[in-house]
Amino acid sequence: MRRASLFLSPGDVADGILQGHLLVAIDVLRASTTICQALVAGARDILPVAEIEEAKRLAESLGQENTLLCGEREGRIIPGFDLGNSPLEYPSEKVKDKTLVMCTTNGTALLARLKGVETVIAGFVNAGAVVRHLGSLKGDMAVFCAGLHGGFSLEDAVCGGTIVAGLESRLARRERVLLSDGALAGKALFQRWGKNLPGLFKVAHHARYLASLGFERDLAFAARMNSLPVVPVYREGRITSLKN
Amino acid sequence: MRRASLFLSPGDVADGILQGHLLVAIDVLRASTTICQALVAGARDILPVAEIEEAKRLAESLGQENTLLCGEREGRIIPGFDLGNSPLEYPSEKVKDKTLVMCTTNGTALLARLKGVETVIAGFVNAGAVVRHLGSLKGDMAVFCAGLHGGFSLEDAVCGGTIVAGLESRLARRERVLLSDGALAGKALFQRWGKNLPGLFKVAHHARYLASLGFERDLAFAARMNSLPVVPVYREGRITSLKN
Repeated sequence: MRRASLFLSPGDVADGILQGHLLVAIDVLRASTTICQALVAGARDILPVAEIEEAKRLAESLGQENTLLCGEREGRIIPGFDLGNSPLEYPSEKVKDKTLVMCTTNGTALLARLKGVETVIAGFVNAGAVVRHLGSLKGDMAVFCAGLHGGFSLEDAVCGGTIVAGLESRLARRERVLLSDGALAGKALFQRWGKNLPGLFKVAHHARYLASLGFERDLAFAARMNSLPVVPVYREGRITSLKN
Repeated sequence: MRRASLFLSPGDVADGILQGHLLVAIDVLRASTTICQALVAGARDILPVAEIEEAKRLAESLGQENTLLCGEREGRIIPGFDLGNSPLEYPSEKVKDKTLVMCTTNGTALLARLKGVETVIAGFVNAGAVVRHLGSLKGDMAVFCAGLHGGFSLEDAVCGGTIVAGLESRLARRERVLLSDGALAGKALFQRWGKNLPGLFKVAHHARYLASLGFERDLAFAARMNSLPVVPVYREGRITSLKN
């Protein structure tokens, strides 16, 4: 028997649960999705940073040649940065073998709180790969939704439910998974929207905001379930791809 | 058009949203349910208080004759108190015309944060009455779930969704209701469990805990949708029944 907890809102993060758990962080729109794309496109690593000035200093200290400064505020690229937070800005030609210093609003804030504990990063694009990885390990799982400006965001909750339901299904024949209230809710939300992500993105607040900025193609990209079979792992301040 | 926001976790409470909204507070297990029962049984008013010592002082200052000291810690009656937090302890013979000083763990903590703004209290037992009341008023609505120990609790989220879906349905022909992400999630959870509250209480963490303490009958009581058509209103520190 193992436990699966899903923390639907960033305010729900219980520090006590971090140690000894398999941790998953979710920011579907768009940090999770962009990180997966960047790693599949061959980026060497990604260094998430909370503040803009800190990101600039870090990028400078690393040297311009192999470093890109990436991130957004209110959905838009930060002035003076190389790349924004759209996965479409991260093709191989731009990011291969580069170190990306990344500064986003919600995803980076969550990772800053998880600093010091190894965490897997998940979106819809790599949900299946994350489930396979978690299923191959032992232990209780805690999934954290980045949310939006400190509150609940629907697409992260649905994605959390995708991971929970996927793990439960994968382990069905050999191990019982005991779901927390948040995990039960997430699973129900996955059952409601998991097979209709475009429909989800038509109603979810942050998706509507991104569409209003002209990022409809990002939404289509983020909705491609299991299109990027990568497992990004955040440890000691760096995100790298888990070697298969 | 009006907006309906549902704050699924107590950490989601955004102070900025309080003013100018129709507010609803939910603590299904068990403060909401017990408050409804007490008012239907003829209690004069209920004074929610956060701390035990504060409750004792307040009850003493009001005089023993018409005051009852009520509340729980970890689900059990507080030693020396008159009543616990089971709705079954609140028949008319005990509470008619009494002032109840009430100290519960999650519900009272939520009300303390909503102090100063008029708030309606809802559970499954009075969801329909609350919806009718909200439907008769104008303005945006914000629903707050008390949750459990600062985190998400499934039954409060399902109840929040019951209110949201009920209001949307009631206003369908005359006014559009724009749902927040939390409200969309709550509505989906209502669709999943609203017609199977006993099933909900078989899986939800706090319900299982109460069952383990022997409070199964409280769960059956709390699951009786629309059995107590009362609208408890919290204003200026007191909860009274809205006069029809």
